[in-house]
Amino acid sequence: MIARDPDELIAEAARGSRTALARLITYVESGGSRQRATVSRAYATPAPYVVGLTGPPGAGKSTLTDQLIKTALESGSFDGAQPFDQVGVLCVDPSSPFTGGAILGDRIRMQDHATNEHVFIRSMATRGHLGGLSLAVPDAIRVLGAAGFSVVFVETVGVGQMEVDIASAADTTIVVTNPGWGDSMQANKAGLLEVADIFVINKADRAGLRETRRDLEQMLELGTAKEPRPPILETVASSGAGAGELWRAIIEHRRLVTGTQQDHHRAAQARAELDRVLSVMLRARIGELAEGAAYTEQVAALIDGRTDPYRAAEALLSET
Amino acid sequence: MIARDPDELIAEAARGSRTALARLITYVESGGSRQRATVSRAYATPAPYVVGLTGPPGAGKSTLTDQLIKTALESGSFDGAQPFDQVGVLCVDPSSPFTGGAILGDRIRMQDHATNEHVFIRSMATRGHLGGLSLAVPDAIRVLGAAGFSVVFVETVGVGQMEVDIASAADTTIVVTNPGWGDSMQANKAGLLEVADIFVINKADRAGLRETRRDLEQMLELGTAKEPRPPILETVASSGAGAGELWRAIIEHRRLVTGTQQDHHRAAQARAELDRVLSVMLRARIGELAEGAAYTEQVAALIDGRTDPYRAAEALLSET
Repeated sequence: MIARDPDELIAEAARGSRTALARLITYVESGGSRQRATVSRAYATPAPYVVGLTGPPGAGKSTLTDQLIKTALESGSFDGAQPFDQVGVLCVDPSSPFTGGAILGDRIRMQDHATNEHVFIRSMATRGHLGGLSLAVPDAIRVLGAAGFSVVFVETVGVGQMEVDIASAADTTIVVTNPGWGDSMQANKAGLLEVADIFVINKADRAGLRETRRDLEQMLELGTAKEPRPPILETVASSGAGAGELWRAIIEHRRLVTGTQQDHHRAAQARAELDRVLSVMLRARIGELAEGAAYTEQVAALIDGRTDPYRAAEALLSET
Repeated sequence: MIARDPDELIAEAARGSRTALARLITYVESGGSRQRATVSRAYATPAPYVVGLTGPPGAGKSTLTDQLIKTALESGSFDGAQPFDQVGVLCVDPSSPFTGGAILGDRIRMQDHATNEHVFIRSMATRGHLGGLSLAVPDAIRVLGAAGFSVVFVETVGVGQMEVDIASAADTTIVVTNPGWGDSMQANKAGLLEVADIFVINKADRAGLRETRRDLEQMLELGTAKEPRPPILETVASSGAGAGELWRAIIEHRRLVTGTQQDHHRAAQARAELDRVLSVMLRARIGELAEGAAYTEQVAALIDGRTDPYRAAEALLSET
């Protein structure tokens, strides 16, 4: 019978038990005292290296992740210094903050790896955090780290706040797009420029490649916060073309964030971790407020035009 | 010389001064004591009727808004009972939470109305509120109400949280799409179903109309929280085709939210107004926390693996 204590489970997971690992991730997803005990232990271990893949649905993120898993396992390490023989994958499905309805991507190809002892794949839902990444995702990343994984891929559909959150949880963020998608990227230009360490034009054998590359280059011309400028790579994930170059670009970027940019990078990540939890805890306070009689009174006063939302909010906050 | 006191400015705006109105909106955008005085006065007046238009860039929202302004002014009232001879328009440009860089849409056509004394158009940026709608937008809506506007159109690019926020600030939310956009809507199905009171397929003279209508119908089949089910209309905004039907659909929806659904609708809006401000005020507290020495210490402890984000956040919150 499998242990239930997080400390024992982490020891079992580190010895290779996938059942123990799966249970730990369930703990961080379900909250409560087991989540806290798991997290308390998991954050004491250094984080694994996290490669985030984001982009619209249909861009081929799952197929590309599939190819990267293969390449990562074949290469066996980032730079010879830190060998790894197993790879973690978290697939994040965005869901509405209201309905919790998840959008399931094409996971079929990745299923090939599901029975591979070198690969651990877990789908996670996201909700609650204003449409952003669930806290359980960064927690699950740390659980994988505590279980001995040194590299984790996180694949997520890029929608709004999700992109920013995944970038703050990842060490290298890859934005996946397709030929002909100049217009749809335009909508989100500022967001993409903020998060992308590497751009990939997947399905690069299709029409419109040159225009999309030009659009991306123009976007980068206009300004990126990233230094050096993110490369634009071309892949055909269905055939594996370009996966080797992409892996090398990841290694190249990793050299920066574990080298000259290390202190800055780790401090930014720690602040992002802390702010995410602070934000959720403060939102929980709003939830508690909303159940009280004082809240109901302020809403009634707003409906009648007897107050404004700022006075009402201050009245509520002064009571906590 | 124009007054600077919000009370006087509201009186001047109600007498038709566009300079006074513009200054009041600047007040709500810039925060501080003038914002508070303006808001305090503006929320004492009943809100105008707000029609929100959201959808991807390039969907033709500006051109469609342009046609709706014309139709609204020609009809002169919603139902004969509440005449109006001026229309407010707020164009909301989403910007990155980091850079504040705005994406400017095509406002050229709408400029035709800019010199029209019956139309007041204002572009507003949005930032801060986790990628969502700036608080200044609902405040500006109330300023327009206090200045005597009984109908306001709010046009915004639908990206993530923005959509949910605009819907909670609007009385009737129109989601604008185009033929051939089934795939891109798929990414955001749950979000669209939550917010749309009316779907519009604009550029309906283009190929792919039938497929897009079928996709929308299937989405609605799978479940919408809205009762009755949102209609799907077809327009060609560049020629004005369908604008009359869309205006009638708005009037039809308005009959619900000012009729049988009125109490529910007003309470939901008041809660949304209050929660938006509570959320911003609580985030401001995070900002204040992040400037303190205790925060710096917790970040250092996180980097060293001496704490986890939950313990760190609790330690910080217990000090406030």
